[in-house]
Amino acid sequence: MTLQHHLPADIERTSLAIITEELNQMGLIFPEDTAPVVKRVIHTTADFDYARNLHFTPGAVAAGIAALRSGTPIVTDTTMALAGISKPGLAKLGTTALCYVADPEVAAAAKQQGTTRAVAAVHKAAAAYPGAILAVGNAPTALLTIADQIEAGLRPALVIGVPVGFVNVVESKERLFAVCQECGVPAIVAMGRKGGSTVAAAICNALVYSAAEMLDPRARGWK
Amino acid sequence: MTLQHHLPADIERTSLAIITEELNQMGLIFPEDTAPVVKRVIHTTADFDYARNLHFTPGAVAAGIAALRSGTPIVTDTTMALAGISKPGLAKLGTTALCYVADPEVAAAAKQQGTTRAVAAVHKAAAAYPGAILAVGNAPTALLTIADQIEAGLRPALVIGVPVGFVNVVESKERLFAVCQECGVPAIVAMGRKGGSTVAAAICNALVYSAAEMLDPRARGWK
Repeated sequence: MTLQHHLPADIERTSLAIITEELNQMGLIFPEDTAPVVKRVIHTTADFDYARNLHFTPGAVAAGIAALRSGTPIVTDTTMALAGISKPGLAKLGTTALCYVADPEVAAAAKQQGTTRAVAAVHKAAAAYPGAILAVGNAPTALLTIADQIEAGLRPALVIGVPVGFVNVVESKERLFAVCQECGVPAIVAMGRKGGSTVAAAICNALVYSAAEMLDPRARGWK
Repeated sequence: MTLQHHLPADIERTSLAIITEELNQMGLIFPEDTAPVVKRVIHTTADFDYARNLHFTPGAVAAGIAALRSGTPIVTDTTMALAGISKPGLAKLGTTALCYVADPEVAAAAKQQGTTRAVAAVHKAAAAYPGAILAVGNAPTALLTIADQIEAGLRPALVIGVPVGFVNVVESKERLFAVCQECGVPAIVAMGRKGGSTVAAAICNALVYSAAEMLDPRARGWK
């Protein structure tokens, strides 16, 4: 075997150097708050489209970090996004991440109300943790329901809106972002079709690592 | 709210029609075996790069479907890929999916051998299920270890090699694919930097749904 088995920390540093260099070549330089989020999403997807797709309301990153530091939980729309969030990071912050989509109560409520489990899960999350960080990587219907709830007065600490797909996805993200801007709710949204559970988890992890000060101090490339 | 809440099956059909139409516009038409895999990965990522990135050894899809029908388990490299695989599909096939990366024995073995948990997990999987479907969405070191093991005689039913990243990833996938071709091991690999846990899960699900005949018969676009 000719390829070396690198240490994970070395791989991360080298990857970051490549990402930063290629962003520079594209003429893209990010502010100190959003850079770690954009770079971690590119690190997770190897897709530089996210350098342009990711939109932030002003102060969204700081709001997410502050919320995590005060123990605010993250609620995801899929068990896959939940599985991707750093458990050591959450533990260091003394907080947690949850997902209601497989909850039997949510399934029953969805059936009774003739809606999807994703929508019923948002209702449950809004009732249980009205000030949570809501991370949506899959279901545009969840994002639309969050937008409705925000219009009705819900104030999550942050909405991460990055569902992926071809039907209702682009529109749901535009609507969520507009509603968040209007109502002063912090939001991080991947405009366009792209996104997914790995993107949702990557954004959560960027915030978790920043909040918990778990970034490798040698990997200065994150900023 | 002006956007409609579509039914999931309708969304899938419409998404497939869009994907098929855009692939046609790109002049890309896939054989009946690989089309459902390529389309499901694009459906999961909204990234048409996979139309060119995904490489298949001859008969790889049929080998994966046959293995699943005979109850072969899927072993993934991350809990995130594991979380993304359809549990109803696996149940219908009477098989299962596993991930050893969080196994305490694997952590101990990695520490003792001075290697990564991803590598130790491959060793455990190879010992426990030498004829499994191996799905790697994250760790290039896992893919390199699988390549070594195949050279040493391991014969998995199928290797799904789709790690994502900037260091060792491109090379690990090229090496795995070459070794699989040489040794007659079926493989599905996303060449280049792109991939990830969602891609690994999407490929597994394309095979699971085909094997379990769970494709919506109205969604003819899958082929």
